[in-house]
Amino acid sequence: MSAIRQTTNKSLMLFSGRAYPELATEIAGHLGVTPTPTAAYEFANGELFVRFEESVRGCDAFVLQSHTAPINTWLMEQLIMVDALKRASAKRITVVAPFFPYARQDKKHRGREPISARLVADMFKTAGADRLMTVDLHTAQIQGFFDGPVDHLFALDLLIHHVKERWGDRDITVVSPDSGRVRVSERWSDKLGGTPLAFIHKTRDPLVANEVVANRVVGEVEGRVCILVDDMIDTGGTIVKAAETLFDAGAADVIVAATHGVLSGPAVERLSNSKVSEVIITNTLPIEPERRFDKLTVLSIAPLLARAIKEVFEDGSVTSLFDGAS
Amino acid sequence: MSAIRQTTNKSLMLFSGRAYPELATEIAGHLGVTPTPTAAYEFANGELFVRFEESVRGCDAFVLQSHTAPINTWLMEQLIMVDALKRASAKRITVVAPFFPYARQDKKHRGREPISARLVADMFKTAGADRLMTVDLHTAQIQGFFDGPVDHLFALDLLIHHVKERWGDRDITVVSPDSGRVRVSERWSDKLGGTPLAFIHKTRDPLVANEVVANRVVGEVEGRVCILVDDMIDTGGTIVKAAETLFDAGAADVIVAATHGVLSGPAVERLSNSKVSEVIITNTLPIEPERRFDKLTVLSIAPLLARAIKEVFEDGSVTSLFDGAS
Amino acid sequence: MSAIRQTTNKSLMLFSGRAYPELATEIAGHLGVTPTPTAAYEFANGELFVRFEESVRGCDAFVLQSHTAPINTWLMEQLIMVDALKRASAKRITVVAPFFPYARQDKKHRGREPISARLVADMFKTAGADRLMTVDLHTAQIQGFFDGPVDHLFALDLLIHHVKERWGDRDITVVSPDSGRVRVSERWSDKLGGTPLAFIHKTRDPLVANEVVANRVVGEVEGRVCILVDDMIDTGGTIVKAAETLFDAGAADVIVAATHGVLSGPAVERLSNSKVSEVIITNTLPIEPERRFDKLTVLSIAPLLARAIKEVFEDGSVTSLFDGAS
Amino acid sequence: MSAIRQTTNKSLMLFSGRAYPELATEIAGHLGVTPTPTAAYEFANGELFVRFEESVRGCDAFVLQSHTAPINTWLMEQLIMVDALKRASAKRITVVAPFFPYARQDKKHRGREPISARLVADMFKTAGADRLMTVDLHTAQIQGFFDGPVDHLFALDLLIHHVKERWGDRDITVVSPDSGRVRVSERWSDKLGGTPLAFIHKTRDPLVANEVVANRVVGEVEGRVCILVDDMIDTGGTIVKAAETLFDAGAADVIVAATHGVLSGPAVERLSNSKVSEVIITNTLPIEPERRFDKLTVLSIAPLLARAIKEVFEDGSVTSLFDGAS
Amino acid sequence: MSAIRQTTNKSLMLFSGRAYPELATEIAGHLGVTPTPTAAYEFANGELFVRFEESVRGCDAFVLQSHTAPINTWLMEQLIMVDALKRASAKRITVVAPFFPYARQDKKHRGREPISARLVADMFKTAGADRLMTVDLHTAQIQGFFDGPVDHLFALDLLIHHVKERWGDRDITVVSPDSGRVRVSERWSDKLGGTPLAFIHKTRDPLVANEVVANRVVGEVEGRVCILVDDMIDTGGTIVKAAETLFDAGAADVIVAATHGVLSGPAVERLSNSKVSEVIITNTLPIEPERRFDKLTVLSIAPLLARAIKEVFEDGSVTSLFDGAS
Amino acid sequence: MSAIRQTTNKSLMLFSGRAYPELATEIAGHLGVTPTPTAAYEFANGELFVRFEESVRGCDAFVLQSHTAPINTWLMEQLIMVDALKRASAKRITVVAPFFPYARQDKKHRGREPISARLVADMFKTAGADRLMTVDLHTAQIQGFFDGPVDHLFALDLLIHHVKERWGDRDITVVSPDSGRVRVSERWSDKLGGTPLAFIHKTRDPLVANEVVANRVVGEVEGRVCILVDDMIDTGGTIVKAAETLFDAGAADVIVAATHGVLSGPAVERLSNSKVSEVIITNTLPIEPERRFDKLTVLSIAPLLARAIKEVFEDGSVTSLFDGAS
Repeated sequence: MSAIRQTTNKSLMLFSGRAYPELATEIAGHLGVTPTPTAAYEFANGELFVRFEESVRGCDAFVLQSHTAPINTWLMEQLIMVDALKRASAKRITVVAPFFPYARQDKKHRGREPISARLVADMFKTAGADRLMTVDLHTAQIQGFFDGPVDHLFALDLLIHHVKERWGDRDITVVSPDSGRVRVSERWSDKLGGTPLAFIHKTRDPLVANEVVANRVVGEVEGRVCILVDDMIDTGGTIVKAAETLFDAGAADVIVAATHGVLSGPAVERLSNSKVSEVIITNTLPIEPERRFDKLTVLSIAPLLARAIKEVFEDGSVTSLFDGAS
Repeated sequence: MSAIRQTTNKSLMLFSGRAYPELATEIAGHLGVTPTPTAAYEFANGELFVRFEESVRGCDAFVLQSHTAPINTWLMEQLIMVDALKRASAKRITVVAPFFPYARQDKKHRGREPISARLVADMFKTAGADRLMTVDLHTAQIQGFFDGPVDHLFALDLLIHHVKERWGDRDITVVSPDSGRVRVSERWSDKLGGTPLAFIHKTRDPLVANEVVANRVVGEVEGRVCILVDDMIDTGGTIVKAAETLFDAGAADVIVAATHGVLSGPAVERLSNSKVSEVIITNTLPIEPERRFDKLTVLSIAPLLARAIKEVFEDGSVTSLFDGAS
Repeated sequence: MSAIRQTTNKSLMLFSGRAYPELATEIAGHLGVTPTPTAAYEFANGELFVRFEESVRGCDAFVLQSHTAPINTWLMEQLIMVDALKRASAKRITVVAPFFPYARQDKKHRGREPISARLVADMFKTAGADRLMTVDLHTAQIQGFFDGPVDHLFALDLLIHHVKERWGDRDITVVSPDSGRVRVSERWSDKLGGTPLAFIHKTRDPLVANEVVANRVVGEVEGRVCILVDDMIDTGGTIVKAAETLFDAGAADVIVAATHGVLSGPAVERLSNSKVSEVIITNTLPIEPERRFDKLTVLSIAPLLARAIKEVFEDGSVTSLFDGAS
Repeated sequence: MSAIRQTTNKSLMLFSGRAYPELATEIAGHLGVTPTPTAAYEFANGELFVRFEESVRGCDAFVLQSHTAPINTWLMEQLIMVDALKRASAKRITVVAPFFPYARQDKKHRGREPISARLVADMFKTAGADRLMTVDLHTAQIQGFFDGPVDHLFALDLLIHHVKERWGDRDITVVSPDSGRVRVSERWSDKLGGTPLAFIHKTRDPLVANEVVANRVVGEVEGRVCILVDDMIDTGGTIVKAAETLFDAGAADVIVAATHGVLSGPAVERLSNSKVSEVIITNTLPIEPERRFDKLTVLSIAPLLARAIKEVFEDGSVTSLFDGAS
Repeated sequence: MSAIRQTTNKSLMLFSGRAYPELATEIAGHLGVTPTPTAAYEFANGELFVRFEESVRGCDAFVLQSHTAPINTWLMEQLIMVDALKRASAKRITVVAPFFPYARQDKKHRGREPISARLVADMFKTAGADRLMTVDLHTAQIQGFFDGPVDHLFALDLLIHHVKERWGDRDITVVSPDSGRVRVSERWSDKLGGTPLAFIHKTRDPLVANEVVANRVVGEVEGRVCILVDDMIDTGGTIVKAAETLFDAGAADVIVAATHGVLSGPAVERLSNSKVSEVIITNTLPIEPERRFDKLTVLSIAPLLARAIKEVFEDGSVTSLFDGAS
Repeated sequence: MSAIRQTTNKSLMLFSGRAYPELATEIAGHLGVTPTPTAAYEFANGELFVRFEESVRGCDAFVLQSHTAPINTWLMEQLIMVDALKRASAKRITVVAPFFPYARQDKKHRGREPISARLVADMFKTAGADRLMTVDLHTAQIQGFFDGPVDHLFALDLLIHHVKERWGDRDITVVSPDSGRVRVSERWSDKLGGTPLAFIHKTRDPLVANEVVANRVVGEVEGRVCILVDDMIDTGGTIVKAAETLFDAGAADVIVAATHGVLSGPAVERLSNSKVSEVIITNTLPIEPERRFDKLTVLSIAPLLARAIKEVFEDGSVTSLFDGAS
């Protein structure tokens, strides 16, 4: 007999970087697994090291990292994890990056700039990733930066559900904090049953590059609850200024909703000191207790990620989770 | 002596597909060259054939095609030209696609869709293209679909110059025909000195996918000249409906400006029958005499392309032409 | 427990482009499946769009297209289908191209020509194809243009079976219509039990490139039934002229046999008006009713393709179907 | 000043493997250079080592190897030379393989065979070759196995010139030794002014795979000088048997012409003992004195290769040398 | 129904080159399979041909070759086997190269040298290998030359076990024959319970490149049994000279242990004539009877390879076999 | 006229990351250029941004980064710079990494580990690097991790020159701090005229993995000046312990020499408190004033890098700088 024959099995394994292990644990709980035990540490000069404590041969690997600060360290750790999995004969490797790093650098704004989001997608591929899973990309076109399947999940239903529960009985206007994301607001408006839309028009000084001279509200906001929607809140500067402009324009109330709570630098102070009534985000990025504040609502993205991982593993089809318009 | 040494020369050669040879001739005139003589024809079953009539060894090749209908034929012709240049030892090959084909399919709107714009970028690479040159991509992120330099040119100044000359003394509002392109309108507004902005909000039936139930104007348009700006005019349906909505909302006048005049199917009839006062486009795509109509203004993109080709050949820097924000 | 384990399943799915859906239906019938429901259409400017209506995650996909006119459109459609399958996590993608497009441009005849057949093979790879399946390549070397498995099927047995049934009792000479395909005729001769061979020798004017001045029959044809064999019949010009030369040389009868019935332009008129007694082809390409004529016999290639697809899916070995000499 | 500027120079350097240094010396003489001094030797276990004795930075490298026995050794040596050039910063690397190794394995004749000619082309690419130069490929399609420029040269004019001088006053028939190369004979016939053509038809036993049962001459040979033309003479078996068949059929004389004199094993004995009057080859492969025999004429391919190398270096166009039909 | 569903099976198949079929047979015996029947031979000019006699579709292929002289022939044969497997739809291909060819050329010692070990790794990849399996690489860094999983096995335990049995009751010093492999000796020392270490210091003439002027023992060897350990014994020159130096320094006895018995040229004579008491190697390379001598002990590597192949096939984890330090 | 012809020029441009701009300035001074003005900064969440302030079209770019802590940030910055250069049409991009990051992870020590040094090499390639330049790689094999030219420079002459000047009149023994780097010590010994060698033998507990139980000196050190040589000093732990072992063994004096002064964590304190007389390093990595201490000598690597860059730009040959043994 010249061959040994066997039935093929597959096994789902979840791997977690060190940026936000609590999220991995939460997802693992939904899946009924435990994250694979992993030794990971830094050498004295900052070089990272990773080793898995169990065999990974032939597994269907999902490698989760949450790209919070120090973001380059966590990105590199995830790349190293993927390299180690590739070299250890994992069968398929899916990078799970709920917040895609460098998504904002998705094009050249001027000459001689990088397109870092493409670079990141290429580095995942180079390291050995077969697939990507992510939530609410800054622009949906980033899907096309990766040469392979991208499971692009949406937090929209999660956020909308919360907004409807708490603010559903008020007169709502959905507001985009700038002219580039009005389409996203329109999707919110549709889901909320066709509310009015508005956006903040930034006028620039024609003599000074990128010098914004005024914020003007375009659209109907007076006496209404304005929901400022964005994909992420970084330093909070834009969003808080937008809120002020809305109040100046007569808004009755302003709430803020975003998928990714980056909350860098002065964000927490700015938001908690603002007149905004509620700030709603998900935990695609860790929000440590000291960065939490009264008005902040953090919804868990873990159930969505767990369902998506399960479907990918089982070749199921839950397109409602994936690939929506943007 | 074990080596022959010589000074290196470079030579710029321009190649043109058959979709719109007049544009190549016009560009060539600005450059002071003639398009390289090329034998190109179709076999009886539609397969294309191309052969260059002069040596192309070591040249810096610029391969122009204008992606009008039949678009797949012209795309394939350009790919075959690039393949022939690669195999004939051209030194560097720049694909010049003033209207990037399939740019609208730049992401998955739902599951199980292609990202055809990435596929096109990859096919150019596979055929042998080192670089791309294009005008006003549908979304600037498409730059990142190509793994190499992309010279992304803007027709904005050309269009603005014409608008200022003819309409500069009126009260203008810049209007985006939908929520996804308000950012582009904002750039127009900046260039026009800070005019008001508006956009058309399409509300959808929550029970029927993609069923638009109403168009609402968001922003100030009453009694003003509205400039509807877009990257392309295809069948004209969206733009004519937007113009009607603007007139209903009290607009004094409506003009339309777009880089790419696709003008498919009923576009000419729709636009010439509409109340729109002027339709301004460039000739990135051919507009045959029979598709021209009274209100139509066609500005030539050739000078811009010629300057860009010259700068690329001479390693010059005219960043003002390239890579602007989007 | 740190992993979920499951038995792996595989599923065969058949996808069809719009060029010749009847062939897909026929193959599907043999397999006992239905072609996967697919939304496919053209935008007004000719850009194509494809979306699959069922989940394709993890499937073993066979993507059939019949490359008839407009050939570049159908090629592009198939590439877009492959891209969509890749991005939707199909496990393995086999392009089924019964008539390989651009197969005749399989080398440079002179300088500065493309090798379009290699370009097509590379584009399939770029889009995401893992494997190719095709029938009677113009030259067998095209297998080597693809970096992966190629299932190269032969219609020879199908054609021979018909010829033997109808013409088996006559004195047959197998004739190659030109000097480049005598090897193929030899294979026919072997299968028919060692009949004589002949070919048409085209003499060229040494002073004018490619100017054919005379057709001479080399080999014994007088009083015999000549079977002109070729891989394809395009405009029919060569084959009809060859038939005339054979009749002039005393042939008793002439029949024509070819795998691919391209039948472009004047082919139908030429063949039906000729003295040829029978034209035998397969349906690797669609032959619409209006292009069918009395002497034409069309044999179905569907059973062969269905068997091959089944074997590939099941890892069977029916080498007799594949990879024969050429 | 933030940049140093200089005029760019290029330098042609010729590198030679150890298989046939005399050919390199001859080519170098025509070019007016000397082959680059190179240390090359085998380790005791057969592993090869190569080191160049002069700087090669930035050079335009032409790497010549003549693929005679031991063919795998010489192929590996050439690959190693290319690797060393790539790592030493050569600017462009052209592999010169006058006899392309493994050209006969250019397709799968049956299932589970390699396509070794494609593998060789890919290995040259992997090692770092940018371009290939070769003479009279077994089939012209092999050009398409390499993803880059291939300078495909023809020895036809060289051979024809000799034949015309010596045999031009006789009645000639050009004969293909088998059915697969009649096209090549036709090209000879054209160049000789339209001589008759013939070929040897091998009939096979339908019951035993590949069992040839008879050789039949198809075409007019009686009383004529038959020129048997082929791309290579390996063991001489086919060619000598063809000559006998021709004499049996009444040929007045038989001469043999081929580009590549492989002359393996019994070839020299077979040919010198045969009734063939002259065997004409070129020196794409070395013919040591002990393998030369009276009837053998060896024409030098060096002038053709030298001219081609010069044209490639200088970006000249001598298409007449290249890329002809096959 | 639009899909056929089946359970997936996998099958292990073992393929053997012709260099050392006995090793394949031995491994196959341990696995309970037979090597796949394969037709393999050389053409008259040395070109190789391979064809598998059974279907390999979908198999998990292990392709064994033992890289003995003529090493380039056997390397090429293995590459051709991999190409044939890839084109015949093997599912996964693991190259098994117990002695990795060209491992000593793992870096540039001086300028303008190749890195042939990387070239070999790349050629395996180009041919279609997914994975590598090898034993005791010359340097462990060669793992990183392959972009994929490398199963790096160690013969250390096998060799140590033998040494302990036979020499365990003596006072042992582990000696490195040169300064570059002291680390390996240290690993031996650890396994032997902390024996002393020594190495041979070669002093060089500062005026003549690579001219070794003296061998000095560094470390304690007087009156002790010295085990000279190395990865391979090629011509035996270094090792015999090292043994002499040790005896001169007062060693009581010297034994030699190495994984790979290359035993080129004068090796057998040198070793059997030396005062060395035992030479211990494994059969990663064939040792024909005529090269065996009294003092030579050959341990079989087959059980280790068989266990590793089985684990890889079954996705088992026997890290103790693999990937150890170096 | 169908082409524009010009003489080709080339221009050297130097780019510097922000890790150690003083080194770039020093190198630029030697070259007679200034580093290209560059805008570089971090976003609030740590994402990096880079833009060049001058045109880089067609330049020969050298991109310097010194990989000190935070090492992942500086690596990412350099990758982004390379991406930006590629997209801005730089002609050739050489990454200059005097200290190659992650060089110590150049192999798998055990299963399921990454080979991060290969990953880094691949990421440079992915970003767009054509070439690498580096100093004293941890192991020379890392050259082979990059698929392209690597200029591997040596600080040995620089260090030796200093040692000879200051310690040349003493009885020196060159000592390797562990068994893995004795070869490097041997090269030192050769350059110093054949001094004795020694190394520190670490014995390990056979029952506890990697538990070192004792350091033993192998070689002659008593009464001599011991030069401990290594490629880098990280935390200083190994080196200080080795020095103590040497003093215990009777060394008269100990000095330490290494190319890369990582000097992490407790290194400065350990070294300055030790009995070591001098610590000699180069400035491949920045040594801020607060980390400098009395015994520390820092030699500048800038002249060597400047000469190498100049030679690469001018296609010169100074092999003495490059590619030495290791």
